[in-house]
Amino acid sequence: MLKLVFPAAFLLAALAPSTQQTKPASAGDEGVARQILALERAALDRSDRGDGEGFLELSDAGVSYFDPGLAEPIRGLQALRPYYHGLPPSEPGSGEMLNAHVQVAGDVAVLTFRYVIKTVRSGRVTRWNATEVYHRTSAGWRIIHTHWAYTTPRLAK
Amino acid sequence: MLKLVFPAAFLLAALAPSTQQTKPASAGDEGVARQILALERAALDRSDRGDGEGFLELSDAGVSYFDPGLAEPIRGLQALRPYYHGLPPSEPGSGEMLNAHVQVAGDVAVLTFRYVIKTVRSGRVTRWNATEVYHRTSAGWRIIHTHWAYTTPRLAK
Repeated sequence: MLKLVFPAAFLLAALAPSTQQTKPASAGDEGVARQILALERAALDRSDRGDGEGFLELSDAGVSYFDPGLAEPIRGLQALRPYYHGLPPSEPGSGEMLNAHVQVAGDVAVLTFRYVIKTVRSGRVTRWNATEVYHRTSAGWRIIHTHWAYTTPRLAK
Repeated sequence: MLKLVFPAAFLLAALAPSTQQTKPASAGDEGVARQILALERAALDRSDRGDGEGFLELSDAGVSYFDPGLAEPIRGLQALRPYYHGLPPSEPGSGEMLNAHVQVAGDVAVLTFRYVIKTVRSGRVTRWNATEVYHRTSAGWRIIHTHWAYTTPRLAK
């Protein structure tokens, strides 16, 4: 049975709790949600400063990865690492996780959230939809899938 | 340990096999990959004809869902159903799964692929990145998370 875990106010005040909770979360699942959110937030804090190593350290050898700049998904950490390292240096920003949500299914946790990041100097705002699939391994929680996409992108005609 | 399963030619000729396989897939995982791909393809065949019920039947009560038309993710089948039913009727199309990939972690399977769909009459092509997280339940495999996004969207200035 899939258990839904919604991070409520007790987790992180910045996360807007969902209003559609239909199943109570177990204490164990609440702990998992708390762990996953902390791991993700720590990696985001680093990537907001232009340091992608936090995500690389968290990612599983077999990670799959989508973002809107890629014509094909990336398969595997060996391919993700040089991609991250080759990205142009980005202006430091400050991002907020919104509407975050953790679903726990066995040793897998699916984290979904919106991420709104504002660059410190120019104030440019980018809005993301984010999926992170975490897997509990002997080495701790590892990301086995990442999907970044724009929220409601305005397309060129 | 996460096992990677790549659908090779024996699965579906239309699926381009990945070239980055580093771990052998077990026979059980190959069976799971085959099942997941068949379920997804059957639901896509229906949605290509404008019938979203296949995806609704496959989706778990607690499904989470992103697509580029949504300002916020959808949480739960009770919210996904009216959203699907409210979408404007789409012109029938024919879509191809490309670079499909199944990762198996316990009772969870993460399917990632590109989907290139061409409408039958006008020939308009749309390119998607797709993530489907399936969970093995007593009722069979159910989708617990869906993320649709455009591949390399060209944004308005």
